[in-house]
Amino acid sequence: MYKFYNIKYINENNKKILNKIIIIKGWVKYFRNNYFLEINDGSTIKNLQVIIKNKNIKKKKIRIGIPLKIIGKLIKTNNGIEVNAYKIKIYGKIDKDFFNKSILQNKFHSRSKLRQQLSLRFRTNLFNCIIKIRHFLFIKIHNYLNLKKFIYINTPIINKNNAEGAGEVFKITTLNLLDIDKKSKVNCKKDLFKCKANLTVSGQLEVESAMYGLGKVYTFGPVFRADNSNTKKHLSEFWMLEPEIMFYKLKDIIKLSVNLIKYLIKGTLKNCKEELDYLDQYNKKYNNCKDLINRLKNIINKKYIKISYNKTIKLLNNYNKNIINWGDDIGSEHEKILFNIVFPYEIPIIIYNYPKKIKPFYMKLNKDKITTKSIDILFPSIGEIIGGSERETSYNKLLDRIKKLKINIKNIMWYINLRKLGEIPHSGFGLGFDRLVQYITGMNNIRDIIPYPIYPGHIF
Amino acid sequence: MYKFYNIKYINENNKKILNKIIIIKGWVKYFRNNYFLEINDGSTIKNLQVIIKNKNIKKKKIRIGIPLKIIGKLIKTNNGIEVNAYKIKIYGKIDKDFFNKSILQNKFHSRSKLRQQLSLRFRTNLFNCIIKIRHFLFIKIHNYLNLKKFIYINTPIINKNNAEGAGEVFKITTLNLLDIDKKSKVNCKKDLFKCKANLTVSGQLEVESAMYGLGKVYTFGPVFRADNSNTKKHLSEFWMLEPEIMFYKLKDIIKLSVNLIKYLIKGTLKNCKEELDYLDQYNKKYNNCKDLINRLKNIINKKYIKISYNKTIKLLNNYNKNIINWGDDIGSEHEKILFNIVFPYEIPIIIYNYPKKIKPFYMKLNKDKITTKSIDILFPSIGEIIGGSERETSYNKLLDRIKKLKINIKNIMWYINLRKLGEIPHSGFGLGFDRLVQYITGMNNIRDIIPYPIYPGHIF
Repeated sequence: MYKFYNIKYINENNKKILNKIIIIKGWVKYFRNNYFLEINDGSTIKNLQVIIKNKNIKKKKIRIGIPLKIIGKLIKTNNGIEVNAYKIKIYGKIDKDFFNKSILQNKFHSRSKLRQQLSLRFRTNLFNCIIKIRHFLFIKIHNYLNLKKFIYINTPIINKNNAEGAGEVFKITTLNLLDIDKKSKVNCKKDLFKCKANLTVSGQLEVESAMYGLGKVYTFGPVFRADNSNTKKHLSEFWMLEPEIMFYKLKDIIKLSVNLIKYLIKGTLKNCKEELDYLDQYNKKYNNCKDLINRLKNIINKKYIKISYNKTIKLLNNYNKNIINWGDDIGSEHEKILFNIVFPYEIPIIIYNYPKKIKPFYMKLNKDKITTKSIDILFPSIGEIIGGSERETSYNKLLDRIKKLKINIKNIMWYINLRKLGEIPHSGFGLGFDRLVQYITGMNNIRDIIPYPIYPGHIF
Repeated sequence: MYKFYNIKYINENNKKILNKIIIIKGWVKYFRNNYFLEINDGSTIKNLQVIIKNKNIKKKKIRIGIPLKIIGKLIKTNNGIEVNAYKIKIYGKIDKDFFNKSILQNKFHSRSKLRQQLSLRFRTNLFNCIIKIRHFLFIKIHNYLNLKKFIYINTPIINKNNAEGAGEVFKITTLNLLDIDKKSKVNCKKDLFKCKANLTVSGQLEVESAMYGLGKVYTFGPVFRADNSNTKKHLSEFWMLEPEIMFYKLKDIIKLSVNLIKYLIKGTLKNCKEELDYLDQYNKKYNNCKDLINRLKNIINKKYIKISYNKTIKLLNNYNKNIINWGDDIGSEHEKILFNIVFPYEIPIIIYNYPKKIKPFYMKLNKDKITTKSIDILFPSIGEIIGGSERETSYNKLLDRIKKLKINIKNIMWYINLRKLGEIPHSGFGLGFDRLVQYITGMNNIRDIIPYPIYPGHIF
């Protein structure tokens, strides 16, 4: 019997199988002169050319989009590598009208058009490349942490605490919303969990508890924000990596996060050449990012800016008086000044020692008692991709802080109690995976780098 | 400066660093005669022994549980490998009362007791071993599929379809439940997504759409059931692996799933020896599973039973007249008969060609039009771990079936429309990850193999 190969394999290993009869399976991308076919199977964006000389092959049903199986000889011609088809089997029919009205029609479609046909988007070259890079980064994150002896903890999606103490949460219920309606009061006792339940905003608290037993741990999964944010950087459902490490200090998590970013980008440049080349060309033509590959090389070769929050505020106000008050969060408009004017080098900026009032309760305070042992890592054109800190280790200090912030203690008493196991120094960070994918692929809208973007007014 | 090592490394590589001064960090597991310490750091369950000869070291604050840093020389004595401590730094204090009342006290605690202190459970030997095996299996699943050129698709958690068409779903809302209460009618237009939203029950439909563009894809993440099932095999939130492959037939997914299971168990036996040995001993003492390791070896060495649904019904009724009707699902009571009496070999049973009326709408029918091209793989003592099928490829047949089942077409029209891209043969399966972990660790309750089990009446 003849052997089956995917097209990526044939493209890359054609010397090994030249002049052999092979089987390929895929769909028709182009069909010209009733003679030339270009076939794709999703393994690559580089189609395989097939020629139909054999007169026994019926061409009537062949059209763009149709899925088929081809048996033929792999040959080398002036056109490069081609398959001389001996036999073609067509799988069922396609809907020509549907096809021609869809984004699969062979012409340029805007990204917002692609977003209107999410379920078909996977078959476009653009999305093929983006999703493969997303996959590569996902696998490499797990491999990197596994090699460094981190243990993966799947923290729960449904929970009852709001780790960040900020942002809106989605409520979950098994009650019939119309039934609730008829009653005088919502009775949570009748709900499946017998209490109010949310979608998690972060696995931070739960993964910290795993850290107390396992030392080096991480969670990596979907988290949720119910805020009504309709921006190019926000999703209602997005992916976050959250490592947490016993005995680590702030300098250790800076090192870990910078090493991880460089490792991931170096790996992408090496292993996703086909995809990056396509995206580089695409971005040059249709997007703001004019030099994707050099931009990525810059990120792995250069040392990042490292600057305190205090100094950042001074620099911003030097540039434009009263543009920001001490204690304010650094927003998009400030980031623009930092990246375009203060540090115009297209490299990330690590800002450390943020004021406690704009950071979550669990971050360790500096001796000044008003700033935290924290970092954010900002990326040019994207903003914050990483946020981390040393964690408060003292039971009393943590409890004090929570009381002052008037956070509901009941649901996180288990977390506060972890400190009773010993005031072990530890640190961790959160990495916004989607924003990293956005940066690496050069896309300016986060909705273009996740299979099914979920945002206000839009679920799939 | 001296070098830091984790205890697992020291245990496994002590020849390389013998008589060197090293740094270790961890917590005190045992403290005997004011002289012998046993230290653990979560990297292994095998503690490192430390002796305190140096009179300058203050022992007053040392007690079980306390976290510390030790600098000392690694030596070999009659007791084996030990560290002769030169210097000890204690990190903060512990709460002795809290500690002594907790599951961290050095004595046997039942698994239901451990479950009452989920946040501390990670520090027990039992849970250390279970979570490391869970981690190993998680990483290996991704590696296996990555090597086979599958692309990981993160399908959405929030969606509006109910892929299986069965089972209860969790509703998600941003409305104030009490506000809903006051109104005469629930107004979804005011909800963040402007429509009814659920927690996903399966990523099957969305991953299938990715398959149409990328060929070999999978999703692997949390899925949800709102049914009020309080059993040892069910969770409200659990992890499911769902590969979907273009041009695959039923025989191909049987091969893929059996190979994957054997690969995972073979890998666990080879790489998680310490953990499996502990669990083997634990299970012998405290659990029903008396021969964990041989049981696993059996699974990788033996050929699995393969039998049609029709034949299974006949065999069951031969054993006990009218115990099951044709068309009924095979339940726990039938599984017991199959594994204990009909095929008492402690190997999985692959049952194929289930009746359409107990399987989801997307499964391809056999020529008899009443059974499907489907499989379930049942495991002894656990039941179904894998369920898969060929998918219906014909637009018309799929639409017919959906209409007959009176499924709401509106929300899955995008899915039905995928068939307009060509009637491409494809197949996929779902693997219940938690049940697989349960089987491999020998635990008889699924709540004992996931960090934070979510089930009716219980969120964390």
